[in-house]
Amino acid sequence: MGKQQKNAISPSRAEDYPEWYQQVIKASDMAERAPVRGCMVIKPWGYALWENIVAQMDRMFKATGVKNAYFPLFIPINFLEKEAEHVEGFAKECAVVTHHRLEKAPGGRLVPGGPLTDPLVVRPTSETIIGDSFSKWIGSYRDLPLLINQWANVVRWEMRTRIFLRTSEFLWQEGHTAHATDTEAIERTRMMLSVYTRMVQDYLAIPVIEGHKTAAERFPGAVDTLCIEAMMQDRKALQAGTSHFLGQNFAKASNISFQTETETEEFAWTTSWGTSTRMIGGLIMTHGDDDGVIMPPRVAPAHVVLLPIFRKPDDRQQVMDYVNGLAAALREMVYAGRNLVVEIDDRDIGGARGWDWIKKGIPLRLEIGPRDMAADSVFVGRRDRPHRDKTAIKREAFIAQLPDILDDIQNQLFQRACRFREEHTRNVDDRSDFYDWFTPKNQEKPEVHGGFAMSHWCGDEACESKIKADLNVTIRCVPIDAGSETGTCICCGKSSDKRVVFAKAY
Amino acid sequence: MGKQQKNAISPSRAEDYPEWYQQVIKASDMAERAPVRGCMVIKPWGYALWENIVAQMDRMFKATGVKNAYFPLFIPINFLEKEAEHVEGFAKECAVVTHHRLEKAPGGRLVPGGPLTDPLVVRPTSETIIGDSFSKWIGSYRDLPLLINQWANVVRWEMRTRIFLRTSEFLWQEGHTAHATDTEAIERTRMMLSVYTRMVQDYLAIPVIEGHKTAAERFPGAVDTLCIEAMMQDRKALQAGTSHFLGQNFAKASNISFQTETETEEFAWTTSWGTSTRMIGGLIMTHGDDDGVIMPPRVAPAHVVLLPIFRKPDDRQQVMDYVNGLAAALREMVYAGRNLVVEIDDRDIGGARGWDWIKKGIPLRLEIGPRDMAADSVFVGRRDRPHRDKTAIKREAFIAQLPDILDDIQNQLFQRACRFREEHTRNVDDRSDFYDWFTPKNQEKPEVHGGFAMSHWCGDEACESKIKADLNVTIRCVPIDAGSETGTCICCGKSSDKRVVFAKAY
Repeated sequence: MGKQQKNAISPSRAEDYPEWYQQVIKASDMAERAPVRGCMVIKPWGYALWENIVAQMDRMFKATGVKNAYFPLFIPINFLEKEAEHVEGFAKECAVVTHHRLEKAPGGRLVPGGPLTDPLVVRPTSETIIGDSFSKWIGSYRDLPLLINQWANVVRWEMRTRIFLRTSEFLWQEGHTAHATDTEAIERTRMMLSVYTRMVQDYLAIPVIEGHKTAAERFPGAVDTLCIEAMMQDRKALQAGTSHFLGQNFAKASNISFQTETETEEFAWTTSWGTSTRMIGGLIMTHGDDDGVIMPPRVAPAHVVLLPIFRKPDDRQQVMDYVNGLAAALREMVYAGRNLVVEIDDRDIGGARGWDWIKKGIPLRLEIGPRDMAADSVFVGRRDRPHRDKTAIKREAFIAQLPDILDDIQNQLFQRACRFREEHTRNVDDRSDFYDWFTPKNQEKPEVHGGFAMSHWCGDEACESKIKADLNVTIRCVPIDAGSETGTCICCGKSSDKRVVFAKAY
Repeated sequence: MGKQQKNAISPSRAEDYPEWYQQVIKASDMAERAPVRGCMVIKPWGYALWENIVAQMDRMFKATGVKNAYFPLFIPINFLEKEAEHVEGFAKECAVVTHHRLEKAPGGRLVPGGPLTDPLVVRPTSETIIGDSFSKWIGSYRDLPLLINQWANVVRWEMRTRIFLRTSEFLWQEGHTAHATDTEAIERTRMMLSVYTRMVQDYLAIPVIEGHKTAAERFPGAVDTLCIEAMMQDRKALQAGTSHFLGQNFAKASNISFQTETETEEFAWTTSWGTSTRMIGGLIMTHGDDDGVIMPPRVAPAHVVLLPIFRKPDDRQQVMDYVNGLAAALREMVYAGRNLVVEIDDRDIGGARGWDWIKKGIPLRLEIGPRDMAADSVFVGRRDRPHRDKTAIKREAFIAQLPDILDDIQNQLFQRACRFREEHTRNVDDRSDFYDWFTPKNQEKPEVHGGFAMSHWCGDEACESKIKADLNVTIRCVPIDAGSETGTCICCGKSSDKRVVFAKAY
């Protein structure tokens, strides 16, 4: 192999990570910017990935007793005013509907007409409108727990947007539950976080740290916010899911009360939890390389592409018959709960064909020409290995091994991501080491810093905000499984009993 | 059986059909009005039905090569101006976003802030925004056909709303395709209509008539609109799906052009087609009776409810063990492509328990008490039969027959609906008979009229609009499979070569 190996994506991750991210999405044909400010169009290859994520997560939700429902897109403004912290957190960046008609202005242009007496907000999240329903649905302890999820679009007006990571409109699920006791609500908050962890680790192959947000980083109105945090390849953290214990705050705001077994009236304890199309951004930034996206097999939009090779025009019919037969056999196989998705690409465009599928990140590429047919074998390229590293395997052996090959790719991706995170995570106990860890060494690449610092924090918001002001570094979470350990706050030196995750973040 | 049989829904269909519809939805717990004008909350029982419809239809779409994608909720106003007829049809009833922030007014109330330079419309349908993407995605004949579907929410500001039938926000799918030739686009328009027909007839058990809309009833901007029309139990027509051949109108408006094999540049031929949560309204109004909703088994949110009966407190454990074992066995069975959904209702609320499930329309109710267990049998009530008409069946026989029983219920519902439609459809050739057919006989029930009139129409819009003005009756469609037959226009007496469907409609 030559030193000067050609890669499909320019710039490379090392050259310009943010630009690499834009280019890799473009090259994979997953999504693109919409003509509407801050919005995206999710193209079929990206949307099929989302469908697989949705299907799997939906099964996991339902297995815990959650049922789906659908609530209005629009929220009356005064609903947002109900919970004091919530209004501060969400009122700033909302799309507001003020008219219900378009009219022709002189000159023929369309202008808003039919002003609404009470403007409506396009939901940025649905605690308040779902709370209104819950207040009607819940009367007695017999109605509890109430376990509801919604798959929906939401809108948060964002100034700086990036496809999948931060868009004005995005797709998500939001779970909302109500319980008779705080214990049960706290258990549910934790249970849904662990569903997210299983989804993100076992299906998206992204290792995460489970933890509590600090008070400063909490969901507006929550008593406790749990989250999962992943490390991207630029060593920044990405929050991949959150689960909130809302105490009785929203129950009081929306009057969600119930009669107990002893006939007293109490407010319910509620939770909410959400994940979004942002996970796709996390998947791309965790696994993608300088040749494009890499799809973990368990959620891949397709598992295998068959690339028929015709040496002579006469070969075509024979090769296509063989390829169609193989595709039919593979499509009957089930992997990770769904039938294998097999693409056949018989375009006559030479080497560009293979590269298209590398950029899209399909787990396996199979080249099949007359020579392979004669040997009854297929020529297999794995997306987790260098693109020239291809192997001939007998057709029957390939079919027999296929589930194991896909599992192996899935595991390799997860292990590689775990190793990357380990390499860029360090216990940091000295203040100047800490500042050094987060200070770019190369002015031309201001984004390159150490990674995650596991450091002690005294619990004081002043220390948290000083570090944020100095380094643009935040406490991503206080890990759930962090053991108790005596130390001193990385900022002020006061005593502390556990390490927290400090990082730059998306 | 006494003459004075009690029914669960009041008023009955005969007493007040529109009010029966509201009450039946309430009693079934499928949906309710939202606190936002014209919007609905779809509750778990209604949403599970929608999920089953979506899953089945999505499979049918994909089998024809369609892929899903997602486009923005918001459409720039000037996009709607692109197609002249389209803007007339949709600009009137849109939700318009004019601000992107909320601000606190003096006194603390929230008011719109951050005015947008260019207001945005919440999509009433997506031809224009998807057309913009298509214009970028399509360059050559090799990119065609492009077959895309979107599952989404849309908003049309409606003055008079009714849950599922007409709401300001509703859930739907909209398919959008582009083709190299008009022939292929017309074939696709027809193909998707036949997917709708199969879905609505074979799964929702609603018989439909396939036809063309008249020019006056066409989708704004379409060259031809195909539709399926069903008859509700008040004899009015409900349009359950539409498929539009858009010619090159939208391609010209959005500049969707391609290079042909001979290297000329041409506009593509496009189609669009849609169905919505309105189908649920159609299902309720086709099958529902004076005891509630009746769910066709193939799309039912659940198939069987097990109702354990405890004569003595001591029975409980034993009966529940038996019931749980039966539920586990049933849940392993597959019917119409999905695992059987089995509910267990062990609430101690007496007869109200059985009625709750009758109102919800679950296909089968199984009562199981110590006596049934001793005989190793179950006591089965079918929702398509009178509620007292229950039969004891041996457990094993029941399990063996279950798919056939469900199929039989599905077929009975369809046949009953077909018979109802036949009874209330008539060839009408005389003008005064026609006026009589649509004139209520009883002033207290102005909604009761004949039903569908299959009558000749000369093709003149003047006749169509006179009948609409006189009787509030429209031409629902010109049936696709109507044979040629000589006759005279029901309105003006001029010659005509085919009968069309006249009806009052939702």
